[in-house]
Amino acid sequence: MIQKQRPFGELIPYEEALSTLLNEVKPIDRKEFVSLDDAFERVLAYDAESDMFVPPFDRAAMDGFAVKAEDTFEAGKFDPVELKNIGKLHAGKSLEKEIIKGECIQIATGAPMPKGADSVVKVEVTEKEKNLVKIYDPVHPGENVSPKGEDIEKGEIVLKKDVFLTSARIGALAAMGKEKVKVYEKPKIGIIPTGDEVVSVERELKPGQIYDVNSHTLTSVVNKNGCIPLSGNVVQDSIEGLKEEIEKKVKNMDMVLFSGGSSVGDKDVLIDALDSLGEVIFHGIKLKPGKPTLFGKVKDTPVIGMPGYPTSCLNTAQQLITPALRKLSRFPEMAERKTDAILQKRITSSLGRQQYMTVKIENGNAYPVYKQSGAITSMAQADGYFEIPENIELVEKGDKISVILF
Amino acid sequence: MIQKQRPFGELIPYEEALSTLLNEVKPIDRKEFVSLDDAFERVLAYDAESDMFVPPFDRAAMDGFAVKAEDTFEAGKFDPVELKNIGKLHAGKSLEKEIIKGECIQIATGAPMPKGADSVVKVEVTEKEKNLVKIYDPVHPGENVSPKGEDIEKGEIVLKKDVFLTSARIGALAAMGKEKVKVYEKPKIGIIPTGDEVVSVERELKPGQIYDVNSHTLTSVVNKNGCIPLSGNVVQDSIEGLKEEIEKKVKNMDMVLFSGGSSVGDKDVLIDALDSLGEVIFHGIKLKPGKPTLFGKVKDTPVIGMPGYPTSCLNTAQQLITPALRKLSRFPEMAERKTDAILQKRITSSLGRQQYMTVKIENGNAYPVYKQSGAITSMAQADGYFEIPENIELVEKGDKISVILF
Repeated sequence: MIQKQRPFGELIPYEEALSTLLNEVKPIDRKEFVSLDDAFERVLAYDAESDMFVPPFDRAAMDGFAVKAEDTFEAGKFDPVELKNIGKLHAGKSLEKEIIKGECIQIATGAPMPKGADSVVKVEVTEKEKNLVKIYDPVHPGENVSPKGEDIEKGEIVLKKDVFLTSARIGALAAMGKEKVKVYEKPKIGIIPTGDEVVSVERELKPGQIYDVNSHTLTSVVNKNGCIPLSGNVVQDSIEGLKEEIEKKVKNMDMVLFSGGSSVGDKDVLIDALDSLGEVIFHGIKLKPGKPTLFGKVKDTPVIGMPGYPTSCLNTAQQLITPALRKLSRFPEMAERKTDAILQKRITSSLGRQQYMTVKIENGNAYPVYKQSGAITSMAQADGYFEIPENIELVEKGDKISVILF
Repeated sequence: MIQKQRPFGELIPYEEALSTLLNEVKPIDRKEFVSLDDAFERVLAYDAESDMFVPPFDRAAMDGFAVKAEDTFEAGKFDPVELKNIGKLHAGKSLEKEIIKGECIQIATGAPMPKGADSVVKVEVTEKEKNLVKIYDPVHPGENVSPKGEDIEKGEIVLKKDVFLTSARIGALAAMGKEKVKVYEKPKIGIIPTGDEVVSVERELKPGQIYDVNSHTLTSVVNKNGCIPLSGNVVQDSIEGLKEEIEKKVKNMDMVLFSGGSSVGDKDVLIDALDSLGEVIFHGIKLKPGKPTLFGKVKDTPVIGMPGYPTSCLNTAQQLITPALRKLSRFPEMAERKTDAILQKRITSSLGRQQYMTVKIENGNAYPVYKQSGAITSMAQADGYFEIPENIELVEKGDKISVILF
């Protein structure tokens, strides 16, 4: 395809591009059951109500003797009360025996309280002699007992629909005996590499060819944000080929990402294909790197044309696609990790474009590692990046900057 | 098992427990090859050297005309030079033709530079008439050309052994055509639930029984930190059963985590089993929740007895086990996300123990959600926790605290 790059429409600010994209993305509604362990870092798709009490029974919170508290009220350090020990209760076992006034039962932490007992005297303040137990310290009713339902009531909604399942929440589901958990499906994201010079890493390069980088960086970003990447073979830059691919993919995918080769000319073919099948919503963002990003829709499925240069593609994936993927998958907002650093080189930026500059950090100093716009190594060696807003032209050496860590 | 809990040895400070444990943990050395996409968020196990140049050839960085720069030196806005167009070069194709003085070749971004050309005049400053091209702007040698090896030199070590593979690094490996990547294996972590009252979530509860919570929270923590969790059936609290299980597991695992039921008595059996098969290194940490943690070694394999209460187990997993897992798996240090908040309730703490208090955050205010030590729901509803150091007894309502987010 040799042709002049079609002029962009008016470039739109990054914030506007992001909100436009987010407006068109609908959170997934398909649900599935997965095993409890597979539910970790998924999104709960129903209010998880407990159909049991946790703990399921009154249980001893200490090793000792289950008693009627009133039998111990007279006990003192030098003046024990004596109770008759009528049995032993292990954790995991229940006992039919009921204690009456003057009796006690030896009990292990976690064992169910026997009938008639209302408290546990801890073993440290007792002395056992055959079937008699001396109690040196009184207890009040309920002391050293975890009552049934103390943690979770039967019928209680323990976790609300749409929460992200952390380790602790997996634990709460386990406590209620949830073997399977209903979560939202992971949205399916089509990743389609294009470009006449682009070939898969499995192949040998012929003269004039380069390897497909963007499918792999996009696959990782899609995985990271709760979606399933489905990448296909490289599609050649023809309108017919692209139209066919779009029609096939929008049927089965929740979003489709086209990743160009290095040629900006590719975008023209994609824009024409999109235009004839659906609508083009924007083309061109005031974002550096990332300007030539294309966004449209075909039959309600968002279709995005990513910039071809690997750094531009990855930067756009992080700034624009990540929030969209997380809205789709219902993941919580990305938590950024930031650190302050002193810039070690003067940076000039393009007025009117939000620019991202990758840096390496050493001992609180930030060193720009930008090579040129195609260089994936500049991002590979960076620890993070900082933003230069649209209206800033210059950041001086020695300025304190806020670095967002990868 | 009904017995008095064996007294702990002297409780050791949390920092000492952590450094002792880390000293005994050796980073994994086993390696494996995985596909490029599966290498995301794994640890590279060799210096990744490029056996090719990236880009592999001099290529056009713009759509336009490949020229000899010296042919354009006389060009001006009102006084173009005319060159003879002798062909077209698409991306992905190479051409045998060589240009000589006075000639040019139309070229697409990403296409290899033809022989004899040293620069590209961008299409915007040209005018084409049949096979003649008017050039309105001079270029210097190398202008608008990405030279072979600009990003990566052949023989260059692009990524060093032991780096964590981020999206950008996956991209760098793709650019070099690495279809398979050598990474460290994920360490295998045995997770063994114990406790006579503990049953798997797949089973129906009988009277006196509770569900196994800790295996599931530990499984999630192990997964999160680059290791493979391998959990087994619940083991009853007998020395013989535990010894058999330990001997079986230390052969195949890089670390073994025992997770008790609620009974602190369980720990006594485990400590005896450990003592007879290997060595006990510490028992009891000045950590709340998390005190009854046990650490030992059997044939060089670290064996850890986790506290039985779900919150204590999970807190210990996050404070103590997470750094150990990450050392094993060679993952980078856990990046904590913090936020400041105003404590809405006065908290008293135990002097002499590092305490962790879970809180919910709303509008910059932190509300403690601690219920009681067994309550997993308190952690499930929390957004994070804050640390109360050993030597602090009281944190006042209205104090600013630093909350570590889950």
